[in-house]
Amino acid sequence: MNSFGRYFRVSVFGESHGVAVGAVLDGVPAGIPLAEADFMEDIDRRRSGARGTTPRRESDTPEILSGVYNGYTTGAPLTVIFRNGNTHSSDYELFKAMPRPGHADHVASIKWNGYNDPRGGGHFSGRLTLPIVAAGVVAKKVLACKSDVTVKASLAELGGVCCRVGPGAVPDGASRTPEDIVASLPQAAREAMDKAILEGDSLGGIAECVVDGLPAGLGEPFFDSVESLISHAIFAVPGVRGIEFGDGFMASRMKGSEHNDPIGTDGHPLKNGAGGVNGGITNGAPVVFRVALKPTSSIRKTQHTADLSNGCMADLSAPGRHDACFALRAPVVIESMAAIALADLYIFEGS
Amino acid sequence: MNSFGRYFRVSVFGESHGVAVGAVLDGVPAGIPLAEADFMEDIDRRRSGARGTTPRRESDTPEILSGVYNGYTTGAPLTVIFRNGNTHSSDYELFKAMPRPGHADHVASIKWNGYNDPRGGGHFSGRLTLPIVAAGVVAKKVLACKSDVTVKASLAELGGVCCRVGPGAVPDGASRTPEDIVASLPQAAREAMDKAILEGDSLGGIAECVVDGLPAGLGEPFFDSVESLISHAIFAVPGVRGIEFGDGFMASRMKGSEHNDPIGTDGHPLKNGAGGVNGGITNGAPVVFRVALKPTSSIRKTQHTADLSNGCMADLSAPGRHDACFALRAPVVIESMAAIALADLYIFEGS
Amino acid sequence: MNSFGRYFRVSVFGESHGVAVGAVLDGVPAGIPLAEADFMEDIDRRRSGARGTTPRRESDTPEILSGVYNGYTTGAPLTVIFRNGNTHSSDYELFKAMPRPGHADHVASIKWNGYNDPRGGGHFSGRLTLPIVAAGVVAKKVLACKSDVTVKASLAELGGVCCRVGPGAVPDGASRTPEDIVASLPQAAREAMDKAILEGDSLGGIAECVVDGLPAGLGEPFFDSVESLISHAIFAVPGVRGIEFGDGFMASRMKGSEHNDPIGTDGHPLKNGAGGVNGGITNGAPVVFRVALKPTSSIRKTQHTADLSNGCMADLSAPGRHDACFALRAPVVIESMAAIALADLYIFEGS
Amino acid sequence: MNSFGRYFRVSVFGESHGVAVGAVLDGVPAGIPLAEADFMEDIDRRRSGARGTTPRRESDTPEILSGVYNGYTTGAPLTVIFRNGNTHSSDYELFKAMPRPGHADHVASIKWNGYNDPRGGGHFSGRLTLPIVAAGVVAKKVLACKSDVTVKASLAELGGVCCRVGPGAVPDGASRTPEDIVASLPQAAREAMDKAILEGDSLGGIAECVVDGLPAGLGEPFFDSVESLISHAIFAVPGVRGIEFGDGFMASRMKGSEHNDPIGTDGHPLKNGAGGVNGGITNGAPVVFRVALKPTSSIRKTQHTADLSNGCMADLSAPGRHDACFALRAPVVIESMAAIALADLYIFEGS
Repeated sequence: MNSFGRYFRVSVFGESHGVAVGAVLDGVPAGIPLAEADFMEDIDRRRSGARGTTPRRESDTPEILSGVYNGYTTGAPLTVIFRNGNTHSSDYELFKAMPRPGHADHVASIKWNGYNDPRGGGHFSGRLTLPIVAAGVVAKKVLACKSDVTVKASLAELGGVCCRVGPGAVPDGASRTPEDIVASLPQAAREAMDKAILEGDSLGGIAECVVDGLPAGLGEPFFDSVESLISHAIFAVPGVRGIEFGDGFMASRMKGSEHNDPIGTDGHPLKNGAGGVNGGITNGAPVVFRVALKPTSSIRKTQHTADLSNGCMADLSAPGRHDACFALRAPVVIESMAAIALADLYIFEGS
Repeated sequence: MNSFGRYFRVSVFGESHGVAVGAVLDGVPAGIPLAEADFMEDIDRRRSGARGTTPRRESDTPEILSGVYNGYTTGAPLTVIFRNGNTHSSDYELFKAMPRPGHADHVASIKWNGYNDPRGGGHFSGRLTLPIVAAGVVAKKVLACKSDVTVKASLAELGGVCCRVGPGAVPDGASRTPEDIVASLPQAAREAMDKAILEGDSLGGIAECVVDGLPAGLGEPFFDSVESLISHAIFAVPGVRGIEFGDGFMASRMKGSEHNDPIGTDGHPLKNGAGGVNGGITNGAPVVFRVALKPTSSIRKTQHTADLSNGCMADLSAPGRHDACFALRAPVVIESMAAIALADLYIFEGS
Repeated sequence: MNSFGRYFRVSVFGESHGVAVGAVLDGVPAGIPLAEADFMEDIDRRRSGARGTTPRRESDTPEILSGVYNGYTTGAPLTVIFRNGNTHSSDYELFKAMPRPGHADHVASIKWNGYNDPRGGGHFSGRLTLPIVAAGVVAKKVLACKSDVTVKASLAELGGVCCRVGPGAVPDGASRTPEDIVASLPQAAREAMDKAILEGDSLGGIAECVVDGLPAGLGEPFFDSVESLISHAIFAVPGVRGIEFGDGFMASRMKGSEHNDPIGTDGHPLKNGAGGVNGGITNGAPVVFRVALKPTSSIRKTQHTADLSNGCMADLSAPGRHDACFALRAPVVIESMAAIALADLYIFEGS
Repeated sequence: MNSFGRYFRVSVFGESHGVAVGAVLDGVPAGIPLAEADFMEDIDRRRSGARGTTPRRESDTPEILSGVYNGYTTGAPLTVIFRNGNTHSSDYELFKAMPRPGHADHVASIKWNGYNDPRGGGHFSGRLTLPIVAAGVVAKKVLACKSDVTVKASLAELGGVCCRVGPGAVPDGASRTPEDIVASLPQAAREAMDKAILEGDSLGGIAECVVDGLPAGLGEPFFDSVESLISHAIFAVPGVRGIEFGDGFMASRMKGSEHNDPIGTDGHPLKNGAGGVNGGITNGAPVVFRVALKPTSSIRKTQHTADLSNGCMADLSAPGRHDACFALRAPVVIESMAAIALADLYIFEGS
């Protein structure tokens, strides 16, 4: 179903080229200051236009339909929509016969017996991450109200090249737009990106997210571990292929004496191989996870794939406007999903 | 909360050294043949006793309390319990003051204000995976009823050493006990294990799971993608640090033209970089995923960690009986969790 | 939370004098023909304007934002909104200090710490039943697709006077607007209504709902009996005070030999004292229930109640435009709620 | 599904003549004192043996399998079971061919394709209310911890005769067993009961429940009103035909000026026609509701009903041991269900 959360529940709706995309947020506490302008910083972090992203530009203007009164959340469901504008639906006619490799075109048609809206990927479009970013803004406000929790995601790798910047391990994600990220890419990453653009190909990447300020004790051993809830939300983001916490896959190659986090006299772990979670429960250290983002499916480069209209193989060069590296726009989406999952957890268990 | 699933719902209960552990399965279709003996093959795959596993031996005898009549499931909730027997609770007194690094001892106490049952890890114990294996047996029967779906997990790595056997990529997991796995370990893995045992240390590993026979069209884009549901269940298994589907983290370092799966004229993908899922929906190819399993937390080797009783650092050598490589016993648990998640999905959407 | 249903899930949002009210419907099967015009017949049955109803007239124009493509439902979430127009928010200033007896003004303020939108009752307004009627239209289409299920509610009593018309026990509710109902009121009911209007008072009533065509076998004994699901939805309608199935409260005064429904040789009950449900499960007979609707809370007639601004008792004559008998407009709302609950049940269990 | 509650979730399992009946309670706060003896007072209120109840006597001994340690709840799932003992399964052979009028025999068989356990009514048996009473004991402890909430149900009518006793409107239900109730029955009720027993017939009744001490502000307007949650739970009790709150069905025959509860200067209603709930939200007054209980279905008196083995009508005199008036044993069940629903509500919203 198209909703997530038990106490703070986000439902998304809409199609890429339909009337609007939007979200309903249920369980938002009353009394949080909120205006449409509050959404813009994160919307800008998801906005296209930078080199390596699609030239489709949308106004992405949020319209709050319910749940806010006199500048504060009311406690009733909060609904925010975004009208769709800049659509080229004719680009997608081709994909009915020749579903794009790596894309949901074909399975959507099977799932919904051909009644799915195929324009721009319909309900499967990355455009659905726009209301998720809006929901994330509210989720982060909820978390900030509960205690001083911050959720920050950034691009850790692009095309296999490490992109961490600054003195600390993780750059401050909150203020960086795709333009900012592109401007600070290491030389090797920039060259890989330029080459992919030139060839009509695409690149993947890795996003890293750090959540600071959560108290110890959140989560449930079976089946609602902190990792369970976060991964559930993260794998709803189109294009995610994997997730790991703390030492992650490296932990499988470590000894217990290397991976274990000794506990300090203040009750907090002395290092963070576990990524802030033991037995599914937060331990007071930052929750840290990494997400593998695949290269964009839609590429101009020719692919040999089926033409289902005549049952033959054929060459497809996908028309339309697509990101060469959607990973440049993904950190804020990952961050939003984490915030949504944690707000849901914290709003109940942290009370 | 301690349950999972919307249509096929598994609830687990119990503590490691309490009266019993068990599971209630709601939504089991009526008319599936089931007897207590049907659980034994998978229970043997989780059983301790092999080299590298704990010497704590339990009878692990399932007792069906409800939901089966005349050898068939009735449609009413199915309850199965396992009495606990071979317990050495005194081993755990020490951990109240000196919580084991990497274990849930400390967070459980914080979460439940000190009222948690600490004996053997209580509700956080790996023993809770026993009723999960029982639930998995029923889930696999449900899947086999719907169509010819098989779920098979095996050990792909131990201590960083590849353990795949046989001509195909994945060994047939269903028939292999920990003893079988140990017997066929490559030389390097065996040596790493022997060394860890000798040093009182532990090793991690990677389990791989392959699901064959699912139809295309299962899953929901937001938020109940196939990967979302499987990862939610998998991260409830104690000791999991990461999960990846298909090309997984490698996909983040590939180009679109490399990672994309072209579609064949029969509508199925020609390779399986996506791991059987596009846009969160099954595409007809096998669902393939890998799970990173950390090294066992409880080790005899000395760790420098806090003694909370006096606020000083001290040396801890964990007493008690523990697996050096719980990864040897984990594949059937991973397989069970996948089956539970997919039975839940298939029982509704596949109807 | 503001949603209902596991498989066919309805979420409502909006405030009486806010931007819009609306609903998101998740789990709508793909391929159901649907256009905005399809909502109008039922919207007209809820429309004000008849004698005994409020003179506030709204255009009540549905706008579908998502989930419909080329005239058919797509399988993705269906969103429909109604912009609010004809509002007199100033009428409600008074109620902050003097909450209306019988209304939610005061509890809403307590619940949401004064952040609730009080205008027109905000999220507690009967206007929220408009998107519920829209959801009911879709639910009835879902039911009609599954088999030939019909859901029909009508006014059985007004002000204690029986209003059943026609030769059969229950009039055909589907075609009757409030004007139609008023036109066919028995003399005693009309006089009671006229008297109440004259005195600035209000009247209650009883709605009766009959569901034909459900197969036997739907529902769960614990805790999702058919009566549980229907009553859960019905008590979300503002102003409901009771519900009874079949013989209802009369059954408590009958003997078993009187109340029991003997079974005929076709397996169906020979009478319908149980209202179509045994042990929480449909038995193949029509599901029949009655709903007690209170008199409208907002009355012009003077009430002696607290003025919380000064802590004294005072006289309140509620300004604003209100129904004297909202029971005239309620049958379609009751019918919609029943359809929503049954579509949710049938969409899974009937498959 | 066989569970109820979002935060305090009760799952019941078992069959009347199977191994055991029981319940799993998830979300029980840690630190509540609990021992098996604590269940006995309420179990005695449900116990058979009094005149008008079945002579089937069970030991009804609770066995806690999990969730309690050192005399306190741990925070992990709490499981309690009751072994079944005194069963006469042969009494039920007859009902396969001749399903009892008013009972679930026939629909259970349809629902579960004949795989249902028919002995003693199987999962549909009133015996399932035993674990519900156990769950209610815990729920009442949860409510008592949150604030001084009490939930008390009593028998208000038997066979249409008022049974209220004592100076106040409602007798103190907590201390009254069926024997106590029978001992204090008014003359007319006792005569009606004796006559029904003599004729092999059965009687219904009305239970009334009063919840004191809830704060104002609990509940959600759509769709989780207080009445929605309570009625959902109550209609899961076998044999319930209706429920009404406050003035209930009488409200439909009152004017607004009569039914409305003016508000006092302390913010509380001055009378309680609404039964403690406005707009679905508690208003600080006691929550009061009445439940219609049908006469027992299983009667010795001859009924003319179908013999499905030969397709003819025949006479059935139900063998087996049954309550003539299960209403005598029902108040504690109604009380338990209300406590379960309110604990679920309060545990989250009251925090």
